Order: sequence, then structure tokens, then C-alpha cells
Amino acid sequence: METPDLLEKVTNLAKRRGFIFPSAEIYGGFRSTYDYGPLGANMLRNIRQAWWQSMVQTRTDIVGIDAAILGPPAVWAASGHLATFTDPLVDCKKCKERWREDKIDGVCPNCGSTEFTEPRDFNLMFKTQAGPVEGEGATAYLRPETAQGMFTNFANVLATSRKKPPFGIAQIGKAFRNEITPQNFVFRTREFELMEMEYFVPPADADEWYRYWIQYRLDWYIDLGIPADQLRLHEHEAKDLSHYSRGTTDVEFAYPWGFDELEGIANRGDYDLTQHAKASGVSLDYFDQSTNERYTPYVIEPAVGATRLLIAFLLSAYHEDEIEGEIRTVLRLDWRLAPYQVAVLPLSKKPELEGVSREVLDILQPHFMCDYDVTQSIGRRYRRQDEVGTPFCITVDFDTLEDRAVTVRDRDTTEQVRVKIGDLLASLRERTNQH
Amino acid sequence: METPDLLEKVTNLAKRRGFIFPSAEIYGGFRSTYDYGPLGANMLRNIRQAWWQSMVQTRTDIVGIDAAILGPPAVWAASGHLATFTDPLVDCKKCKERWREDKIDGVCPNCGSTEFTEPRDFNLMFKTQAGPVEGEGATAYLRPETAQGMFTNFANVLATSRKKPPFGIAQIGKAFRNEITPQNFVFRTREFELMEMEYFVPPADADEWYRYWIQYRLDWYIDLGIPADQLRLHEHEAKDLSHYSRGTTDVEFAYPWGFDELEGIANRGDYDLTQHAKASGVSLDYFDQSTNERYTPYVIEPAVGATRLLIAFLLSAYHEDEIEGEIRTVLRLDWRLAPYQVAVLPLSKKPELEGVSREVLDILQPHFMCDYDVTQSIGRRYRRQDEVGTPFCITVDFDTLEDRAVTVRDRDTTEQVRVKIGDLLASLRERTNQH
Repeated sequence: METPDLLEKVTNLAKRRGFIFPSAEIYGGFRSTYDYGPLGANMLRNIRQAWWQSMVQTRTDIVGIDAAILGPPAVWAASGHLATFTDPLVDCKKCKERWREDKIDGVCPNCGSTEFTEPRDFNLMFKTQAGPVEGEGATAYLRPETAQGMFTNFANVLATSRKKPPFGIAQIGKAFRNEITPQNFVFRTREFELMEMEYFVPPADADEWYRYWIQYRLDWYIDLGIPADQLRLHEHEAKDLSHYSRGTTDVEFAYPWGFDELEGIANRGDYDLTQHAKASGVSLDYFDQSTNERYTPYVIEPAVGATRLLIAFLLSAYHEDEIEGEIRTVLRLDWRLAPYQVAVLPLSKKPELEGVSREVLDILQPHFMCDYDVTQSIGRRYRRQDEVGTPFCITVDFDTLEDRAVTVRDRDTTEQVRVKIGDLLASLRERTNQH
Repeated sequence: METPDLLEKVTNLAKRRGFIFPSAEIYGGFRSTYDYGPLGANMLRNIRQAWWQSMVQTRTDIVGIDAAILGPPAVWAASGHLATFTDPLVDCKKCKERWREDKIDGVCPNCGSTEFTEPRDFNLMFKTQAGPVEGEGATAYLRPETAQGMFTNFANVLATSRKKPPFGIAQIGKAFRNEITPQNFVFRTREFELMEMEYFVPPADADEWYRYWIQYRLDWYIDLGIPADQLRLHEHEAKDLSHYSRGTTDVEFAYPWGFDELEGIANRGDYDLTQHAKASGVSLDYFDQSTNERYTPYVIEPAVGATRLLIAFLLSAYHEDEIEGEIRTVLRLDWRLAPYQVAVLPLSKKPELEGVSREVLDILQPHFMCDYDVTQSIGRRYRRQDEVGTPFCITVDFDTLEDRAVTVRDRDTTEQVRVKIGDLLASLRERTNQH
């Protein structure tokens, strides 16, 4: 498929089927902000769960936290964001439009003028006031990343969790960046959702862990079904590193506009803990009783946007193939990511099929997200489920009333097998490797 | 237990064991904002999941969405928040402190003065600027509730989801209210997490559904282990209703400071859809093809704060009892809410027990949140798990190496049974009703 065509097809599908809506659309939308509709919300939940499962739940060395979005200036002064988290902006002297100086190549994209004001640093953090009294003491910023919550809670987690380096703190949550040029649908937006993990290690082991996390994160995407040839690693050159970084590698994905960032894995050194210790006066060292040594841990950070992942998974899963002489659209999503894992489809609207369909739902709903669809022909309903990536369609027909069995159709092969209702949960658990 | 004592004990436990930390604590905290530590973050995940399971996953009439936190003024003008979501504030003329007029009984709580400025309406919404250009066009508000995202997406959901009234849209997410007086630990905070569902019904059926949802929500708390005598319903009198409400009933919980709001169930009538239709010019009616009737649905809304629920569940679960002549603290949390469902405890640190302990973890971790604790005596470790509500402790001992079995200890009865490793997952699924 032509790649620009692919982006358009996936974007259309996402809007038409309720993955993504422009935010406040009835008011004309709001500045590259998006809402996630029923299918998008389900898929976001699945992305978070798959990440949490891999990063926290199936490990004994990582714990989660859930820190506040609003924070005081002290945190962002220490982290360096107040001083350096800026874009250089210029105003076109002719048409008065405002631009990022590093993006316009000397010519106003609006009117072609080459005369601009001197660049001014524009901070990317959203600012607000907490409490009813104006003034500096009440200023708050919306976090532009979740990482600082892990650093400011480092000592608290150490004191309460019985963990010691190497160990990690993980967090999923909203972050906000006042980008002047959001772009590519939900690839870069002002409000987005991050999944970040800070892994604290003895400085001597930092490089080894950096390599470990690059490989671990790359493997995660492959395990979730992105073909290896749509992924590549890109190590930043020293001159391109952020102020805190001793090394950063991006996992890149083959977007329709070319390979671009999916996730970044950074070796942040001891920058953050040192900065916060200095600014707060609280020791953020670790004392290793077994070696009698005190040190400030280095931090390895894999960080990825959940909302960015959603579009990458959709792009990678989108296929068109031919079934019985007809072109069908199918999202070959891993079952863990699919908005619905199961669709229960009574062959007709006849009331006698509803009771047994509800019985099937009662068995499956506690374990799988289930759609229930009684409208139009069974063939159209299969296509509709294929298009949104539902791995299993379960058809309840009139034979079901006699044999207490249903038909389970596989999305990818379209193969159908007859399964007893009593064996259905075990059968689906088996087919999804949840023994 | 004396109730003020209970609040202090639970607050201490929450801080000491890593449920809740004051936000930015190394900088002296930040204005009644809290971060959720490892156990609190786990428990919040469980609360969200239990709510989602009950409100979305096990039903066919409700879908989820995930809307943006930042919104344009037009949304909040239509909803009535810009005009009416205010507190009346006065300044003490003597000490200059600022207060909510309706809370101070005519006397400054700080200096005792009775002279105040005239009350001014202070809007409770946090305001910020989106994009690098100042001015009204760029003003954004942080949502003070998630509900408006469901109303502005009503037509989009209707068009993409094949649902029709009665049906609901549910959402979990952060909301922000610039309260002048946050109080009672995490009971009322400026940043909090809401779980809201808007249920759209034919106007004639609104009262019936209102009653249905009051009962359904009350039952949810009882199912999750809050004793019925710690819950009561409180129906607001007409004069106390919000501007949009035709009836509101609170589910109240017996907090240590008395019965107080846990959740509100409101009959919002057609207020919201009508307001947004008027303001946007987009029809938010529903046309019922079966009756040929067009109407604006009424909305029944159960809305509850996840962070408020966390403290209620902790308070309700907190017990002290006597085991083998010793007082122990135990959180009798339902297994679905417990921060860890399972703790895997090798009897000693000897390396031969680690391999088989890891094997047990590999089996259980995909299905349960597991703690792994090798420090101190097994008795102390049991107490530690009791104190944070872990329903099952699994002890791996030297016999395990011979008989491939482990000891499963029940938190509430302290009863221990020996279970084969191969039967462990099935046994725990059985004990948690997940057949």
C-alpha cells in the first residue's frame, strides 16, 4: 500500500469507527486536542495494561506510583525545565504569524517574508494558579513529563518499598507541552499520555542496564506484533543529547512519513537526583550496606507516549486482504490490544437467541472485552469486527439451542470451529495463552 | 475503635507503607496535593478496574471514552461552569486572610475579626493558555469534572457505536477544582480522579433509571466489602440541588467525621444536551425509528472520586484483631482491591529457594499483582502483608523442593493449606471466584 494512503485510511478508520474524535468537535475542535472514543478508550486501556504487565506486574524489581499533574515551580527549577524547556519563537514582521525559528528555514511559511523579530525563548510548560490568591507562591505548572514525580518520590519509595538498586519506579499519566506546532494526527499533541519508568542503578552498571532496557523495550513491540522490519534503533549523537542525558536511543517505527520516534531510552546519569538533592537539601543518595558504599544512583529511563503508540499499532495492524472474492479491511491487532477481544453475534434478532447469547456474555465478559451486535447480516457483522480487529467472533444460532455449542470464528484465518458453551472460556484462554 | 483515632491510624498507615505521599514532599509539599505511592497506585488501578468491570465491561449498554483535560471556554460557557461554578470569597480586613464566606460564620478563623470585604465570586476552574499567543482565543480550562466530555461527544458516540437510549458513556480521569479549603486528607483535593457515567434515557423513563442507578451503585460498594451499616442514601432537598439537577441522591459512607458523601447519583434531565445543542448549533436529539419520535434524552449520572474511594475502602477495611496473643493490624480488603493479591515468601534467603520461588512468580504474576519478600522472619512478613491487605501469602520452604507444593495462608482466617505448584493458579482462581 502507498504509505500516504495508509495514513489517510487509518485516520479515516479511527474517526469513522470511534477510535479518535477531535476534542470539542461540536465547537469546531480545540487546537490539536483529541478525545478517544469507545474503541480508542478500550485500546488505550489495553496499551497501558500491556505496558504495566511487562514493566511492573511481571517483575519484582519495579513498583508503580501515580503522582500529581500540578507541581510547584521548585520542582521545575531543579529539573532544568524552567530554564531550558523552551522553543525559540519569532514573529513574521509582515504578516505577524508566530513560528519556531528552527523549523522555518528563514522564510515565513505564511507570506514568504524573510523579516522576523529576534527569537524569544518560549517555555513549553502550561502555567496556572493554585488557590484563590494571585502571586508567585501560587504558581503551578502542568507537568511536561511524568519523570520528575519518580525523582521527587525516590526517597519515599526507597523507605517504604524494601527495594534497592537496581530497582525501578514506573508511572502512567497525562503530561502537557505547549507545542506551537502539533502534527501528524495524534503523533504530537499538546495533551498526551506518557508511560515512563525510571530505573535506578549503581553508576558502574549504568551502561549495561542502558543496553538491557533498549533490548527489553524493542522486544516488547515485537511481542505485541509489530514486525521487526518496521522497527529500528537510532542512537543519538552526543551533540543532539538533552541537557540531562549521557546517552539516548530511540526505538523508531516505520510511520507512513518515514522512520520516526516511538520511544526513547535514556541514560540520565545522576543528573536528576543530584539536582533535586541540591535544590531541596534532602539526601537522595543510596547507602549500600553490603559494600558500605554511598552513591547517587544513575537512572535509565524508557519513556513512551501511550497515545502515540495507539496510532503506531493501528498503522502496523492495518491490512486489506481478499476473502471470498471481496476485499476486506482487517486490523491484525494482538488480542491484548484489540478494542474488543470477542464479539457475540446472535444469528438473528429472534428473542429465543437473546437468552443464550446473554448466557455466553455472562461467561466471557468478566475476562474479555466483549461487543454484542445484533444488527444486519452476519457477513456484514464479521467485516465490521474484522475492521476494528476483534480476534474472535462467536455466533449463536438456532442449533445452539439444541447442542449448547457456538461457532468461534478466527479473525485472521476466518476459520470457524464449533465449541460447547461450557468449554468456551477454557478454549479462549487456551487460544490467548492464558493457561 | 474511637473514630478520630481510626482516621489517624489509617492516615499513618497510608504514609508509612507507601499508599499516599504529600506531593513534592522534599520541597515542603504542595497545597494539599498528593502522590500515590506503590501500594496506593496499585489500589487506584484496582478501584478503576472494579468500576470499569461493573460499569462498562460486564454490560452491553455502556461504552467508555477518554476525553481531554484541557478544554476551550465555549464548553464551560455552555455547561454553566463559567457563570456559576464559583465560591463567594471574602478578605478579612484585619489580617488579610481570604475565606469562603459560607464557611466562616462571620468571624475570621485566623484573627477573630468580624470585618470583611464584600464577597467576590471566585471561579473554581483552573485557567491556562494554549499555544504561544496570548489572548482569549488561546484560553483553556482544566476540566472540573469529566462529564462534559461525554456530552460533547454524545453525537459522535451515537454515530459510531450502534447504541441507542437507554445507553451510557463512561469515563475515568483527572479533574481539577481550585478549592480554597481542601480538607480531610485525600477526601477533598484540588487535583483528583473521577469515575463518571452518563446514562441517556427517554425522558419518561428517567425516574425509573434514576432509582435503578442508585441501587446499582449502592450494591457495588456492598459487593466490594463495605458493610451495609456503613452506607446510607441521602436524597438532596430541592433547594440544595445544583443548577442542572432534577434530583440527586448521595451514597454516604460512615467516615470517622460522620456520614459524608462517597458518590452522587443525579438526574440531570436534558440540561446538558440542550445547553450544548443551543451553544454549538449541533442537534443533540435522538430520533427513535421504532416510534418515529424525536427527543432530547435525559441523563442519569453516577459520579464518584477514585481517590476519595481509596480512603473510604482503607477506613472500612482497617481492623485490629488478636492472633496468637498478639494484636495485629489487618486490612480486610476485597481481593480485587488489595494492592497485592499474593505475596511469595521464600522461608529463607538460601539460593535453592529462589529458583522455585521464581517459578511460582512466573505462574502467578500474569494473573495477580504479586509481592516478593525475602527479608526478616516469616512471622514478621505475614504481619506486614496483613497490614496492607494481601489476601494470600505463599510460603516456599525446603519441603517444596521435595513435594513441589507450597503453603497458602489466608489473611483473614490465618488458615494454611498445602497446595501443589501445578494446582496453584486453579486454586487461587477458585478462591477468588474467577472460574
